[in-house]
Amino acid sequence: MAVTPASASVPVEKLDLDPAFALHRGGKLEVRSTVPVRDADDLSLAYTPGVARVCTAIAETPALVNDYTWVSNVVAVVSDGTAVLGLGDIGPAAAMPVMEGKALLFKQFANVDAVPICLDCTDVDALVETVVRLAPSFGGINLEDISAPRCFEVEDRLRELLDIPVFHDDQHGTAIVVLAALQNAARLTGRSLGDLRAVVAGAGASGVAVSRILLEAGIGDIAVADSKGMIYAGREGLNPVKEALARDTNRAGHTGSTEDALAGADVFVGLSGSTVSEAAIASMAPDAIVFALSNPTPEVHPEAAARHARVVATGRSDFPNQINNVLAFPGVFRGALDVRASAITENMKVAAANALAGVVGDDLSPTYVIPSPFDERVAPAVTAAVAAQARADGVARV
Amino acid sequence: MAVTPASASVPVEKLDLDPAFALHRGGKLEVRSTVPVRDADDLSLAYTPGVARVCTAIAETPALVNDYTWVSNVVAVVSDGTAVLGLGDIGPAAAMPVMEGKALLFKQFANVDAVPICLDCTDVDALVETVVRLAPSFGGINLEDISAPRCFEVEDRLRELLDIPVFHDDQHGTAIVVLAALQNAARLTGRSLGDLRAVVAGAGASGVAVSRILLEAGIGDIAVADSKGMIYAGREGLNPVKEALARDTNRAGHTGSTEDALAGADVFVGLSGSTVSEAAIASMAPDAIVFALSNPTPEVHPEAAARHARVVATGRSDFPNQINNVLAFPGVFRGALDVRASAITENMKVAAANALAGVVGDDLSPTYVIPSPFDERVAPAVTAAVAAQARADGVARV
Repeated sequence: MAVTPASASVPVEKLDLDPAFALHRGGKLEVRSTVPVRDADDLSLAYTPGVARVCTAIAETPALVNDYTWVSNVVAVVSDGTAVLGLGDIGPAAAMPVMEGKALLFKQFANVDAVPICLDCTDVDALVETVVRLAPSFGGINLEDISAPRCFEVEDRLRELLDIPVFHDDQHGTAIVVLAALQNAARLTGRSLGDLRAVVAGAGASGVAVSRILLEAGIGDIAVADSKGMIYAGREGLNPVKEALARDTNRAGHTGSTEDALAGADVFVGLSGSTVSEAAIASMAPDAIVFALSNPTPEVHPEAAARHARVVATGRSDFPNQINNVLAFPGVFRGALDVRASAITENMKVAAANALAGVVGDDLSPTYVIPSPFDERVAPAVTAAVAAQARADGVARV
Repeated sequence: MAVTPASASVPVEKLDLDPAFALHRGGKLEVRSTVPVRDADDLSLAYTPGVARVCTAIAETPALVNDYTWVSNVVAVVSDGTAVLGLGDIGPAAAMPVMEGKALLFKQFANVDAVPICLDCTDVDALVETVVRLAPSFGGINLEDISAPRCFEVEDRLRELLDIPVFHDDQHGTAIVVLAALQNAARLTGRSLGDLRAVVAGAGASGVAVSRILLEAGIGDIAVADSKGMIYAGREGLNPVKEALARDTNRAGHTGSTEDALAGADVFVGLSGSTVSEAAIASMAPDAIVFALSNPTPEVHPEAAARHARVVATGRSDFPNQINNVLAFPGVFRGALDVRASAITENMKVAAANALAGVVGDDLSPTYVIPSPFDERVAPAVTAAVAAQARADGVARV
């Protein structure tokens, strides 16, 4: 193939003045050996001829692949680069820094080995087919930054086809952490989830998954908005995912804007990249709970929200109550891999949320409804809960 | 999907009495972070929000992916598990220990990060398509243990489609090391390659590639045998790869067995898994060169061969002159990655062989025609030669 120039006109020396670029020079990951290869004897065990005996044993007894390879500890972080952070469809190469970041968080927080796999295809059939072909090399599949609504079908089909955990973190990681924070916020204000009426702005991957887990956890009512306003039964032009949401949500029948629906609501969850006025927050019920999670710009400034709401959370580390997926995904996969779970069930996600909420314990306060990502109790608590629930659900294999 | 039992009836405690199994427990690789993530500040650089600036820069200037991700240092070791060592078609899971072994050798010998990718598909179109989709995540593709003749088409098509190095190690790694050893064996006996008539047993991946590189390097004559005997122009039922070989080899017109062809020959290269009698070796020309490379059982026992041949090499570490691919592939990829080569040219392979042969230098002897895999001069010498040749061939991009 023709040679295309790989050296950019942008001088990296200049870029590296930004500490984020400096940190990223050469990438953020490496693959290391966990066994010594000092001499011919070591080589004859780790490679030919010794390795042949291990291969033969796995060929005869396939489950031994979990004991004698790294497969049972390694997760593929798979993206097609179509919905990267708030940047949108930037393609597989530009998505790589995020996937590397995810992989290093997997290792740091839960000793899960993770490999970033950015794919040069966006068709649902192609994505599904490719991940199925890759699956023998991995103990789990973490889908990442795949745009909605394709992400729903990709995940559903992979869950059907594979007998290893498949988990779209933008959906379920966010959902788990939001549920945990909301449970604690409800407890703080002396209510249960069933007492709460919530409005979710955003019907992409995270908005849909948050709505689904809140319904499952017994939220009183929930109404969801997309860029065209509230989603309700009978609205024209809904895709199948939103149609299903319309059936299961919005019992109050809101048909206007997010701001209209917020009047008298108990909970706002922003996952939209849009904005909500301070006046709309002020119109919410007493003891309002506001999770303005868009990054880097929350739907409403947390200080403005705090003038009217009892609990405010964002996605940012520079304000209290950071809703960060890293609180969930490392422990979720660690727990699933530890018991060689064949899937991550809905119960396992709720168990993860309960465990995460439980870490806060008696220290609960309006500025502390969710632990810090660096709280070392988090991953072990989530891991244990997910593993136990996998056993209870009959999907554990050891 | 239904849960299938993952715990085997084979007790791993018993298997672990074999040191090869004990070494493989839990696998041989891990993925580690190369940057610190100690606190929220680190997290805000390695992950959101800092990472977004790096993603944006790559989206605008794609070549920056080589500077700010690990892609330019990471090779996919891709197999479909159809031709693993001498074990044959054992499938992707059972192939994983070999691919992990390969990956750790990449790291140990040349600081190349490598990820084992065992694919659950064997169709040529499917393999090509899958690797093309994976390609944005990698700086090079090392194909491994894919059966012939599919391996030829898979490699050819990937080389055409991708602008990163694609290298089927069973073919070219073996070819490079054989050429290096044969150059030194010829020098030892006062001959050049053009003076030699060679017989190659085996027309699989390695047999074909060895024959091709020897032709390119100017071997006097070469005749190749498959399981049905010598390959010659006009033989019935040849596949296209063997038909091409028949055109380019066997000027002497041998039509019988390997043993018949060996009478008077200067060089035997065994890559077949078959056997050759001591009498056939005895029938070779004076100063015969015997490379009996099948593992774990060479075509002829090296001690028997040494009674008649001047130079004997095997694939085994417990005899002199071990022909081991690890002498080639780490340095080949290191050199190619260092200059961001768009391909590995034929010249680059020959340059690797010349560099490898050169390491032996004045210590050349019948039991030392090729360096030890643990000779620390090897990888740097191969790396430098491959990088220089990439520049000379116009495929280097930095």
